[in-house]
Amino acid sequence: MDRKIRVGITQGDINGIGYELILKTFSEPMLMDMCTPIIYGSPKVATFHRKALELNTTFVTIESAEDAVEGKLNLVTCFEEEVKIELGKATQESGAAALIALEYAMQDYENGLIDALVTAPVNAHVMQNDNIHFQGHTEYLEEKLGEGQKALMILLKDQFRVALVTEHIPVKDIASTITKELIMEKATTLFDSLQHDFLINNPRIAVLALNPHAGDENLLGMEETDKIIPAIEELRDNGIQCFGPYAAEGFFGSDNLTKFDAVLAMYHDQALIPFRSLGMYEGVNYTAGLPLIRTAPAHGTGYDIAGKNEADETAFRNAVYAVIDIYRCRRSDDYANRNPLRKLFTAKRDDSDKLKLDEEEAS
Amino acid sequence: MDRKIRVGITQGDINGIGYELILKTFSEPMLMDMCTPIIYGSPKVATFHRKALELNTTFVTIESAEDAVEGKLNLVTCFEEEVKIELGKATQESGAAALIALEYAMQDYENGLIDALVTAPVNAHVMQNDNIHFQGHTEYLEEKLGEGQKALMILLKDQFRVALVTEHIPVKDIASTITKELIMEKATTLFDSLQHDFLINNPRIAVLALNPHAGDENLLGMEETDKIIPAIEELRDNGIQCFGPYAAEGFFGSDNLTKFDAVLAMYHDQALIPFRSLGMYEGVNYTAGLPLIRTAPAHGTGYDIAGKNEADETAFRNAVYAVIDIYRCRRSDDYANRNPLRKLFTAKRDDSDKLKLDEEEAS
Repeated sequence: MDRKIRVGITQGDINGIGYELILKTFSEPMLMDMCTPIIYGSPKVATFHRKALELNTTFVTIESAEDAVEGKLNLVTCFEEEVKIELGKATQESGAAALIALEYAMQDYENGLIDALVTAPVNAHVMQNDNIHFQGHTEYLEEKLGEGQKALMILLKDQFRVALVTEHIPVKDIASTITKELIMEKATTLFDSLQHDFLINNPRIAVLALNPHAGDENLLGMEETDKIIPAIEELRDNGIQCFGPYAAEGFFGSDNLTKFDAVLAMYHDQALIPFRSLGMYEGVNYTAGLPLIRTAPAHGTGYDIAGKNEADETAFRNAVYAVIDIYRCRRSDDYANRNPLRKLFTAKRDDSDKLKLDEEEAS
Repeated sequence: MDRKIRVGITQGDINGIGYELILKTFSEPMLMDMCTPIIYGSPKVATFHRKALELNTTFVTIESAEDAVEGKLNLVTCFEEEVKIELGKATQESGAAALIALEYAMQDYENGLIDALVTAPVNAHVMQNDNIHFQGHTEYLEEKLGEGQKALMILLKDQFRVALVTEHIPVKDIASTITKELIMEKATTLFDSLQHDFLINNPRIAVLALNPHAGDENLLGMEETDKIIPAIEELRDNGIQCFGPYAAEGFFGSDNLTKFDAVLAMYHDQALIPFRSLGMYEGVNYTAGLPLIRTAPAHGTGYDIAGKNEADETAFRNAVYAVIDIYRCRRSDDYANRNPLRKLFTAKRDDSDKLKLDEEEAS
């Protein structure tokens, strides 16, 4: 069976711009040729936003993702209750609704009903409850699906890919959290993702320094010498092409980005500041390293513009394209590697070009 | 006397792109209508670079800045000895030559022979000697000229001005170095500079947060609550219009920059990464807060392209324009404030529009 990829789409925070992004994105019917979108949310809330914003996008309400209709924008009803919509406000109700939709989608993923996930923006603060300390989708999915595998946050925009060694921690804890081992773990996940999710045969990774001027020969910090350079050296010994460490201040101002397949940044703002400076409303946040492929627009709930029909859906649309691309890459990569050819050797000191198919592989 | 502003120009590192920047900038005769440039360096070294790069800019060698010729590019001979030029290399000789030129220019400034200073890039590593621990021009000038006044590093590009609370320190020390008092000191210097150096009557300053998501309501760090917000509140009580703290990751991606006259960043890369992402080879580094006005291109020695005629002089030219602009602003501001009008009052509860010039000012 070669059915279209089924993309689960969580509604996100119902007081934000989530439904606006979804409805604007799928106003383009062509997208339904590439995937079957399945929103996890509430038809009442969707209709509220659709009317408030005077959008024309139509959707079909379905009982279960099993009933998803190809060529349509489907919506699975995750809850029937009325919820109070307060545009632009962080409320416990909006947080609870976001969490219900996410958990519903995860259940369906585990049951094989959806293939990949795009999440609309949520507000972590209002998604806490007795059972869940919700830090963010990345952490949530890692705990739910990782089985020991570690998630990696990669920001994507065109050919710009930047991954994070440390994520949501205070600045005072950055230097002590970074270890040689953590850098190696993240770089290895990044390398695997570049190979399998982006089909880059032998990816080149630029590793950023932590300190100003890359530590300026230990005048401005020792982490480059003590942790980052040893990690790069050991990664290279493992066959992973890493370069650097590069001073972050200079890296993004030149054409360096074109020379590498990805950048590994040491902390949140080191990645996010240049990423957003170079195009805030277009970037995609991809959670690599897990069996489930999940993307999201790399921006927040947009409370300040909720309900005003001012939201730019470009990043959300890019997130949908990215999830489809990555899904296809992984599938073709799996297919290509399913029945690998045995390695073939020509005997040494033999000038003939013929392959010796009967030679034994050296063990 | 209203002679043209005399701009001292230090040669910088003789193995870098300093002379290339200077000669390319002053190939445009119009600049000599706006100022009298005086290079501090060596005619031999200047001639070497001029020939190597096949540049046509001419200069006149003078004995002392007193002899500077209007309409010409002047060069004061700071040393007669031969120095070995090794393009692209950091050598003790190139560092010593840079320091001699800088000290010569400072002497002339103290004797009133030059009005302002533009410095070509140096390499701090090779400028150390028994008497001087050279960290950078900002620190050097503060020690030399501050008389207790503190220097402030401001990066300029068009209407983008960003100043730093902490400068060249390791990332691990950022959080502990930042105090409420330090933020207030830097913001006050910035405010004064915006008023007197840029003639902005009531400047608006955006203060950045330290932590990701501006600390996310203390989940990701306490410095916003403990230090930055109290500083902003006290600054406002002092009549300084400060806003924030704004999460750095989001700030530079939107049109926020147009809403403020300057940004106060908490650490080096928080300012430098977006600054360079938004136009590396055009930015200017201005040392505010001192009696001497000093600017420089906001980039390094360019060892990798030294002698190749590949250097872009835009930032250096912008530094020359900036030094002239700031000098003129300060002078006109001083002039405007020399004989202030006594404040005039209309008596309360009086419908007439007439000024009561004979009213006494309330004390």
